[in-house]
Amino acid sequence: MSRVAYVNGRYVRHAEAAVHIEDRGYQFSDGIYEVTAIWKGRPVDLEGHWIRLERSLSELEIPMPMSAKALTVVARETVRRNLVRNGILYTQITRGVAPRNHLFPANTPPALVMTARSGLGPSAAVIEKGVKVIGLPDIRWGRRDIKTVSLLPNAIAKQRAHEQGAAETFLYTPDGVVTECSSSNAWMVTKEGVLVTRPLGHDILGGITRQRLILIAKEAGVPVEERPFTLEEAKAARELFLTSTTNFCLSVVQIDETVIGNGHPGGLTRELRAQYMEFLDKLEGPVWYDH
Amino acid sequence: MSRVAYVNGRYVRHAEAAVHIEDRGYQFSDGIYEVTAIWKGRPVDLEGHWIRLERSLSELEIPMPMSAKALTVVARETVRRNLVRNGILYTQITRGVAPRNHLFPANTPPALVMTARSGLGPSAAVIEKGVKVIGLPDIRWGRRDIKTVSLLPNAIAKQRAHEQGAAETFLYTPDGVVTECSSSNAWMVTKEGVLVTRPLGHDILGGITRQRLILIAKEAGVPVEERPFTLEEAKAARELFLTSTTNFCLSVVQIDETVIGNGHPGGLTRELRAQYMEFLDKLEGPVWYDH
Repeated sequence: MSRVAYVNGRYVRHAEAAVHIEDRGYQFSDGIYEVTAIWKGRPVDLEGHWIRLERSLSELEIPMPMSAKALTVVARETVRRNLVRNGILYTQITRGVAPRNHLFPANTPPALVMTARSGLGPSAAVIEKGVKVIGLPDIRWGRRDIKTVSLLPNAIAKQRAHEQGAAETFLYTPDGVVTECSSSNAWMVTKEGVLVTRPLGHDILGGITRQRLILIAKEAGVPVEERPFTLEEAKAARELFLTSTTNFCLSVVQIDETVIGNGHPGGLTRELRAQYMEFLDKLEGPVWYDH
Repeated sequence: MSRVAYVNGRYVRHAEAAVHIEDRGYQFSDGIYEVTAIWKGRPVDLEGHWIRLERSLSELEIPMPMSAKALTVVARETVRRNLVRNGILYTQITRGVAPRNHLFPANTPPALVMTARSGLGPSAAVIEKGVKVIGLPDIRWGRRDIKTVSLLPNAIAKQRAHEQGAAETFLYTPDGVVTECSSSNAWMVTKEGVLVTRPLGHDILGGITRQRLILIAKEAGVPVEERPFTLEEAKAARELFLTSTTNFCLSVVQIDETVIGNGHPGGLTRELRAQYMEFLDKLEGPVWYDH
């Protein structure tokens, strides 16, 4: 079977899936995206992803290319055609194709691309061991709450981490306060057992997994504080972890040269991950693909 | 005649010029570009553009897709095939096509696109009248010296200006200091007749026209200071203007509600523009296209 991509109204072979060189996504990073997990054939928190997608578009004044309901039809078909049971759905919407000019073009239909592929989450070994992160200055633009494809700084940060044997970054502002990671939200568990993550605002992306984990933690009676914390606080924390669509809840056992706790994934982190996996296993709604 | 674009080794009809949906330019804005003016069939400051292009790529650790000499061959052919006598050459290079992952892919050839079109510079009426700009907070990322396609904040800023009847923005940092415009460098002439523009650094793009104008001004005996200036200083300046590849040297006669000088293009600005036009008319080297 060859992979299939949805591009502006057509399902095409992935190898031949193309957009025009004057698509504003290519020339201006003028577009947004979503990555949605597919777990046992079901989309995870799809409604949350579509709500965020619509908000991102609205912030950029790009119209929805179709309703959320229609997006779901395309998403399901894309997942099905690619035989994805555990994997990800990738959705990208840009302002469309127009002669190059910084100004927003009038009456240009947005461009929509969807792809899906199998493979989700880190290996069992990585989950068991936890990951190392590095601290890096956050030099991204001022609207990180919009999930744009303007991801060059994120890609560079992730690459710097990789070069230092780390999986992610804890990005921080000039005053030493952590914003988030390159493609995840950052969390800490204080010595007092309080779960802390940065509140929503222009400085971070409102993670769907972040939101889900707050619900799960609160339901489990874990105290949650949405407040900023510094890199120094993080280094002194009892536990650290990150959340993202593809990593779920992943333990962080080292920042730069500082080992967190005893260097192994912490108990609360493991518990929260287990509960998140339970949430995944209990997902309801139609199965998009099974085999 | 239909327009022609160069895309990864082939000259194709512009309408059909496409890149893969997993080109990192599309998914991560992981690429750079150059806009070069073509004046009377000759490229303007081509060497400066290629030097900057090579520097941008080097900062992003993207290899040159071909030598500057080979780029020139493609550029010339692209200009010739599009019958461009006065217009622009657009060059974009990205990290190439790879399965979506923030990390830089190994052994991926960079992607190269070139287009050319006729039409250059503002109308005679705009030159005569000057333009209005608006002041806006500069919320772009921290490496504006790299000419990346991560241009969403620039596009939004330009759009905000347009909505307020202005042609450009004077972007400023939280302390009120001007960085540059959305797609131009910002200049002021003080009451004492000193030409001031921000020094090079990570906060602004090193404009090729900016560099050329510094040379022209110094040669004409005009005192030039490369130093930061505030929006307040700009509002009290004798003259203001901006420089860019496509606007050359364009008078700014209003910032927000503040009229500059007598509201008409200043004498020094007009003189510098005249000298720049003279520089253009004296360009040497092969003519790429004439008719």
